[in-house]
Amino acid sequence: MTPQRVTLITLGTGDLDRALAFYAALGWQVDERAEGVAFFALGGLKLALFDRAALAADQGRPDAALGTGAITLAQNFPDRAAVDAAWTRALAAGAAPLKAPEPVFWGGYSGYFADPDGHVWELAHNPFWPLDAEGRLAPVSDPAP
Amino acid sequence: MTPQRVTLITLGTGDLDRALAFYAALGWQVDERAEGVAFFALGGLKLALFDRAALAADQGRPDAALGTGAITLAQNFPDRAAVDAAWTRALAAGAAPLKAPEPVFWGGYSGYFADPDGHVWELAHNPFWPLDAEGRLAPVSDPAP
Repeated sequence: MTPQRVTLITLGTGDLDRALAFYAALGWQVDERAEGVAFFALGGLKLALFDRAALAADQGRPDAALGTGAITLAQNFPDRAAVDAAWTRALAAGAAPLKAPEPVFWGGYSGYFADPDGHVWELAHNPFWPLDAEGRLAPVSDPAP
Repeated sequence: MTPQRVTLITLGTGDLDRALAFYAALGWQVDERAEGVAFFALGGLKLALFDRAALAADQGRPDAALGTGAITLAQNFPDRAAVDAAWTRALAAGAAPLKAPEPVFWGGYSGYFADPDGHVWELAHNPFWPLDAEGRLAPVSDPAP
């Protein structure tokens, strides 16, 4: 069967240097760098910043206008204060605020920002989703093998 | 600093039942289910299928036309045959083919499909990126703490 995993998340960028500066300002460190692409190690998977036109070509639709927003990436935090601290840092790094962190209906606390290319990040505390020491989320129930 | 991690990937969907049927056809198993949302455990992080209008509202921009394609999710495989098998299964599940798996310039083998909501997945074999027994990617170099 198709494995239930993601090993790489790629963000298309219109300006790789600008994108790199943004993630560097968040404190992120590049793991691999090549022409037109940079990779960050996230712990079991990687996140790439990659030229958006090249990403469109890679998908076999070089003329497509690629969009953002219908897929979001979230960082979960152990408490609200950590969400607020990450929010402050993101705005200082040049993020566009979409929704400042606030209590939300599902019992957590969450805010959204967009990176310089419009990629949407959520910063959240979910009291029902504990994080382990490495910041990983455990499944609620182990899926059958 | 902002931790270098992703704990949740959310895919906006226009039809949750249709999206669930697609991922079920890939062999994925739901870990948590609530009204309008379903979560899959990916090993340290989760992937959510979530009503797209609700996702827009969550971002504080209910009228935004959320787009796809500028961010892609990839699954890496240990060899080309595994990529081909996953590709065949994805098409059987109803994926829209974007680019059939083929050798690519960076020395690997890769194809792209779109899920029923237009979310773009890459299926890839990268001979320079070994996977551990759990299907996780190791960093090339450990980032400084």
